[in-house]
Amino acid sequence: MTTPNPGPVAPPPRLLMGPGPITVDPRVLQAMSTQLVGQFDPWMTATMNEVMDLYRGVFATTNDQTFLVDGTSRAGIEAALVSLIEPGDRVLVPVFGRFGHLLAEIAGRCGAQVHTLEVPWGEVVEPDRVADAIRTVRPRVLAVVQGDTSTTMCQPLADLGALCAEHDVLFYCDATASLGGNAFRTDEWGLDAVTAGLQKCLGGPSGSAPVTLSPKAVAVIDARRHVEAGIREAGDEPRGRIIASNYFDLAMVMDYWGPRRLNHHTEATSMLYAARECARLLLAEGLDAVVARHTLHGQAMLEGVRGLGLGVFGDVAHKMTNVVAVEIPAALGAAGGDAVRGRMLTDFGIEIGTSFGPLHGRVWRIGTMGYNARRDAVLGTLAALEQCLRTTGVPVPAGGGVEAALGVYPEEER
Amino acid sequence: MTTPNPGPVAPPPRLLMGPGPITVDPRVLQAMSTQLVGQFDPWMTATMNEVMDLYRGVFATTNDQTFLVDGTSRAGIEAALVSLIEPGDRVLVPVFGRFGHLLAEIAGRCGAQVHTLEVPWGEVVEPDRVADAIRTVRPRVLAVVQGDTSTTMCQPLADLGALCAEHDVLFYCDATASLGGNAFRTDEWGLDAVTAGLQKCLGGPSGSAPVTLSPKAVAVIDARRHVEAGIREAGDEPRGRIIASNYFDLAMVMDYWGPRRLNHHTEATSMLYAARECARLLLAEGLDAVVARHTLHGQAMLEGVRGLGLGVFGDVAHKMTNVVAVEIPAALGAAGGDAVRGRMLTDFGIEIGTSFGPLHGRVWRIGTMGYNARRDAVLGTLAALEQCLRTTGVPVPAGGGVEAALGVYPEEER
Repeated sequence: MTTPNPGPVAPPPRLLMGPGPITVDPRVLQAMSTQLVGQFDPWMTATMNEVMDLYRGVFATTNDQTFLVDGTSRAGIEAALVSLIEPGDRVLVPVFGRFGHLLAEIAGRCGAQVHTLEVPWGEVVEPDRVADAIRTVRPRVLAVVQGDTSTTMCQPLADLGALCAEHDVLFYCDATASLGGNAFRTDEWGLDAVTAGLQKCLGGPSGSAPVTLSPKAVAVIDARRHVEAGIREAGDEPRGRIIASNYFDLAMVMDYWGPRRLNHHTEATSMLYAARECARLLLAEGLDAVVARHTLHGQAMLEGVRGLGLGVFGDVAHKMTNVVAVEIPAALGAAGGDAVRGRMLTDFGIEIGTSFGPLHGRVWRIGTMGYNARRDAVLGTLAALEQCLRTTGVPVPAGGGVEAALGVYPEEER
Repeated sequence: MTTPNPGPVAPPPRLLMGPGPITVDPRVLQAMSTQLVGQFDPWMTATMNEVMDLYRGVFATTNDQTFLVDGTSRAGIEAALVSLIEPGDRVLVPVFGRFGHLLAEIAGRCGAQVHTLEVPWGEVVEPDRVADAIRTVRPRVLAVVQGDTSTTMCQPLADLGALCAEHDVLFYCDATASLGGNAFRTDEWGLDAVTAGLQKCLGGPSGSAPVTLSPKAVAVIDARRHVEAGIREAGDEPRGRIIASNYFDLAMVMDYWGPRRLNHHTEATSMLYAARECARLLLAEGLDAVVARHTLHGQAMLEGVRGLGLGVFGDVAHKMTNVVAVEIPAALGAAGGDAVRGRMLTDFGIEIGTSFGPLHGRVWRIGTMGYNARRDAVLGTLAALEQCLRTTGVPVPAGGGVEAALGVYPEEER
C-alpha cells in the first residue's frame, strides 16, 4: 500500500434515483450485518431451503430448483446460458436495448449460433415477430430480457411460452431490472429459466442472483452433470458434454443446494441473508401490492417530469413501471445534461442516471424502484430537478413537477 | 411460497473453528451494513481505487491490476484461469489435496491440456519436482494452491518464480486459505496471478475474490480484449481469441476498475465494503504481525490437541499456521467423529470441521484464523473438545488441552 491506512468506510449520503443500483432498504442492510454460521450447519441448510421457498414466491413458480447464484445479476445470466446452451445450439435473442446485446454476446461466448431480432431503441419486439422467428430459426433457446433499463422498455412475454413448449425451445428470461416492479409469472408464462438480481425493485445490493429452473431446464442441465473429482461417489459417473464453467455449472450448484449438499463454492452467506430479507419483505407486502406501488410511484415520476416540460423517450405504453427515460432538453446538449446530473448529486445528494450507446447524452434515466418507490423520493427528486434545471438555464414551470406528480396520488394523499 | 412468511434472519450464536468460513470480524459486518452510493459516483470510484491500493498491501505487490472479482474465492480462481489459459495450452498443476484437483478441473474446462503432479494427502510437492516438471512439460501456466485446507498443507512457493520467468511460464497461485495467516509475497516470489477470498484469515464473509495480476499476466489477457458490443468505441477492435466467459473476462473487469470505467457487472458494493474493511484491519495490524498472530494461536491449538492425547495428521513442518487436521481416535470411528462434532455444536455452539475424500471420517479440521485467531477462541475450543471427548467415551487427560496451549503463550499471559 502506498497511501496511509484509511478509516472505516464512510460514504456521503445519497438518494439513488438512477436505473439501479438504488438505495438499499435499511432492513436488508441490517440483515447483512448478521453474524455467519457454518455452511453445513443445520440452521444454515434450513435457511437455504427457506430462501428457495421465498424465491418461489417472488418468481411465482412451483419450481423445485429455485436458488441463488453467488455473483451479480450478470453472473446469473451467464450461469443459466452456459448451463443450458451446448456449443453449436441455435439461440434466438430479441434485442431492444443493451442487455439484449449482452445476452447475445454471452450466448456467443457459450459457442451458440446466435440469431438476433433487433428493433430500434425505445420499442419492444412484437410478440408475433418473435413467434415467426421461433418457427423459422427453430432455436434450442429463446433468450429474452424482460425490462431493459438502457431503453426502459418492458418486453411482453406472456404469449411466448406455449409456442416455446410446442417447438421444444427452452425459454429463458433475464428479469433483473423488472422483477418485483412489473408483473412476472414464471409458471403461467411457461418460462424454463429466469434469473434476476437484488439491486433493482427488490431493494437490495448487487451481488446475489436468484435463479429458477423448470423441470425441463433441470433435465437438460442434469444431462451434463459432472461431479467434481475430489467428492465424486458411486452413481456420479459424468454425463454428456461438460459445461464449460465450473463456477456456473448449475448441475453442481443444484447438488449444493439440494439434499446431497455436495460442496461446491462456499456460499456467500451475507449476500444470502440480503437475498432472504429482500424476498421476505417483498412477499410480506404482497407480490401484487409491490407491483402496484411501483406502478403508482413510477406514474407519478412520469407525470412529474412531463410537468417540468420535459419529453419522455420511447414507447411509454411499454415502459417499465420503475424507470423513465427523460429527454435532455436540446438546448443543454450532452455536457449540459451531465451538468444537471452533477448538480443533482452535489447540491441535493440525489443520483439520476446517464445513458449508454445511442441514447448517451440524449436522456437521463430516473428510477423509482425498491425502497425508493416512495412518495417522498419522487417528490424530492422532482423538486431538486426543477432547481437544477433552473440553475443550468433551462426555463421550467415553478412547482410544475411536484404538482403533476401530486395529481397522480390518491386525492386524500395530495 | 408454500410456508408462512418468516421473521428477520436470526441465526444461533456460533464460534466457527472449522477450516472456514469463520466468524466474521464484527467491524466487517458493520462495514457491510453501510448504505450504497451509485456505481460511478466519484466517491465510489475513489473507494474502488482505495481498495486496489489496500490489496496491493495485502498481496505484497506493486501490481497496478489488483482488484476484486464479484463472487466467492472459486470465482476468482476461474476468472484467473479462464482469462490466462487459451484452449490447447499446457497447464501444470501440483496436486496435494482437493483444491489442486479443483484447479486441474477448472483448467480442463478452460480447454487446457492438464498435467498434474500428485503426492499423497498430508505432504507437499517438493519444489525440485515442480521444477523438473516445468522443464519437461513446458507449460504455459503453472497453477498451484498455496494452502490446501483439505490436508492443511502449505506448499513452498518462494523458489519457483525465477524458473517460471526463465521458461516463460505464467505462475498462478490460489492463496484463498492461506493469505494473511502465512507469509505471502507476490512480487518477491515472482507470481503472475494470485486470487483469494475473504472467509479465511482475512476475517470476512465469502463472496468477494481479491485478485492481483503482474504486468506480464495483464499483457496476456489484454491480447484477448473484446469490449462489449453496446459500449465499444474507436480503438476497441477485438483482439485475439475471445475469452470463453463474459463475467470472468478479466480484460473487461480491468476496464471497469480502470480509468475508463467501462460498464461491466454492477459492482457488489456491500461485498466491496467488506473486502475493504478486511484489508484495512489487516494492514493496520501489520502484514507480519497478522502472520505472527496466526502462527502463535495455531501453535497453541496444535499443542492443545496433542495435550488431549490426539494425533495430528500430515507433515506438521509444512502445515498452514491456521488449520490443524486432528486424527479422530480410532475407537470412535467415523460416526463417533460426527457425534463429537455434533456435541461441540449443540452443547457449546462451536463448529469444527469434517473432511473430504480420503480423510473423510479420519480427521477433524480445526481452524484458528482471522477474527478467531484468538486466545479465548483457542482455549474455549480445547475445553469444549475435552468435555465432548469425555462424554463420547474417549479417555482424555483433564485439562490437558488447555494446559498445553497455555504453555505456548508468553509466560506473562499464562
